Amino acid sequence: MRALCFDGGVVLRQVAAPIAGHGEATIDVRLAGICGTDLEITRGYKDYRGILGHEMVGTVRHCPSAPQWEGRRVTAEINLTCGACPACRAARPKHCERRQVLGILDRPGCFAEQVVVPVANLHAVPDGVPDDHAVFTEPLAAAFEVLESAPMSPQSRVAVIGDGKLGLLVVLALRARGIGCVAVGRHPHKLARVAGPGIDTTDPHSMGPAPFDVIVEATGSAEGLALALQHIRPRGTVVLKSTYQGSVPLDATRVVVDEIRLVGSRCGPFDVALAALANGEVDPSPLIDARYRLADGEAAIAHAARRGVLKVLLEGSR
Amino acid sequence: MRALCFDGGVVLRQVAAPIAGHGEATIDVRLAGICGTDLEITRGYKDYRGILGHEMVGTVRHCPSAPQWEGRRVTAEINLTCGACPACRAARPKHCERRQVLGILDRPGCFAEQVVVPVANLHAVPDGVPDDHAVFTEPLAAAFEVLESAPMSPQSRVAVIGDGKLGLLVVLALRARGIGCVAVGRHPHKLARVAGPGIDTTDPHSMGPAPFDVIVEATGSAEGLALALQHIRPRGTVVLKSTYQGSVPLDATRVVVDEIRLVGSRCGPFDVALAALANGEVDPSPLIDARYRLADGEAAIAHAARRGVLKVLLEGSR
Repeated sequence: MRALCFDGGVVLRQVAAPIAGHGEATIDVRLAGICGTDLEITRGYKDYRGILGHEMVGTVRHCPSAPQWEGRRVTAEINLTCGACPACRAARPKHCERRQVLGILDRPGCFAEQVVVPVANLHAVPDGVPDDHAVFTEPLAAAFEVLESAPMSPQSRVAVIGDGKLGLLVVLALRARGIGCVAVGRHPHKLARVAGPGIDTTDPHSMGPAPFDVIVEATGSAEGLALALQHIRPRGTVVLKSTYQGSVPLDATRVVVDEIRLVGSRCGPFDVALAALANGEVDPSPLIDARYRLADGEAAIAHAARRGVLKVLLEGSR
Repeated sequence: MRALCFDGGVVLRQVAAPIAGHGEATIDVRLAGICGTDLEITRGYKDYRGILGHEMVGTVRHCPSAPQWEGRRVTAEINLTCGACPACRAARPKHCERRQVLGILDRPGCFAEQVVVPVANLHAVPDGVPDDHAVFTEPLAAAFEVLESAPMSPQSRVAVIGDGKLGLLVVLALRARGIGCVAVGRHPHKLARVAGPGIDTTDPHSMGPAPFDVIVEATGSAEGLALALQHIRPRGTVVLKSTYQGSVPLDATRVVVDEIRLVGSRCGPFDVALAALANGEVDPSPLIDARYRLADGEAAIAHAARRGVLKVLLEGSR
């Protein structure tokens, strides 16, 4: 099968089709999404080598141990866990000490005609959710996770810094829960994609003097973190929601004196994301900027890496 | 009166005695403690100029609006609040936007024969608590605050990094709540001051492979924060409990991927600290390294700044 790989450069290769083992399912990838983390990997993040990609919707082709899944349209959780380590036993499976992560850590990803994942990772996609929406399940779940990371209510004053794919999905997830926010970014044309009731947009220099109860930092940059610390209220919470490259300077004096909470936030609940897509609370399709065939995957990655580009999709074998 | 001031250098001066206004009390300082923050101020922290000091026990000399306080032995909260700003109205008075802080921000401190504080800041010292213990009320309250900053139970695996005054008080506060910990520091003779059941001590290189649920970082250094991030478990909490000078590098990737919480923690509950001193749950006196008369305050500050020295006390007018 064809697969888009990273081996120091991004290259489309012909590779052997994966074979589902016991408790696994082989999925024909219908549509996959290029994430910021994929781009970071192509810049060296995590030293990953292999088939890229972790966002997808597909159809189960083969599932010997649970054939009732065959033919169903699915998406899949990206963390493969051992079930036995202290983190798994403590009900923190996404922090499994021996985890593999699709297309990120020790496990082939989904930018391919087929991908194999454990049956336990499958989520059925409701019939009413088109592929264009379902392909956002994984990043939308990560966006919803900010509600677990920080206490928030419709009365909270919330800002989301960063007008990239994940920042905008966070804005949409908050709105789905009735939480308005100020969406902060440098690109008015990107912020405009999530315009709507309860959402104000502004550039980073115009956040105003009134501090925020919660700020979601979704730029992955030192500047974004500094801006968040500048505008968070004492005892407020800054959620770090992005892929960072290495270390960033932290104003520890400000954190201590104002008793600020910084909370790292990663993957989130697929069921919550799928429900929000199914009932129409979130429509992520305005974030789609381009779609490519898998055969043109190298060009797709290059497109996704261009400044100002939001979601680029890869069409699979269907 | 005599007062130990900072005006770019530490100097004992003759100054006018302060006069209590309405709602204030004049206190004869019996005993004061030199804190790490005082030493940071002498190195430029906060650009403070004036009478140093914020840890003290004294006797109320004059309190025109509440004469029942006169003659009583007291300690005093260090944040003077406005009661009217958004933080005060939101029940976060220690984050008052117009606050003064004794000896730290816009308000003369207690390294003097007398200090004036609002009546609202007074706490009576129970009769059974000697001055040598009562003088620790403020830093012990700050130590107890870590229990508000991070969820902990006797089953939690906790480490306290830093064998300075505040780190050791945190160890004692945790023990008072039945929470054992690993006390981490470079100075065995300092760690030995808090030896006891439930407390293990180790050097920073021997924290072992098993991660911690909660780590209190009490060194105020970049190395301490890096060590904490190295040893905290996924979804664990690192409490920043020290005075930092400027910014420190933060491994943001680790914070995000492992969903770590960093929580700044400052002043704490005086009532909790005084109760723990009164019922003997905490005996801070092993931390006392030296005592000086106020007249020898310059030498006292120099002594407190020497490596390996813990608490240095200043004896006031009594």
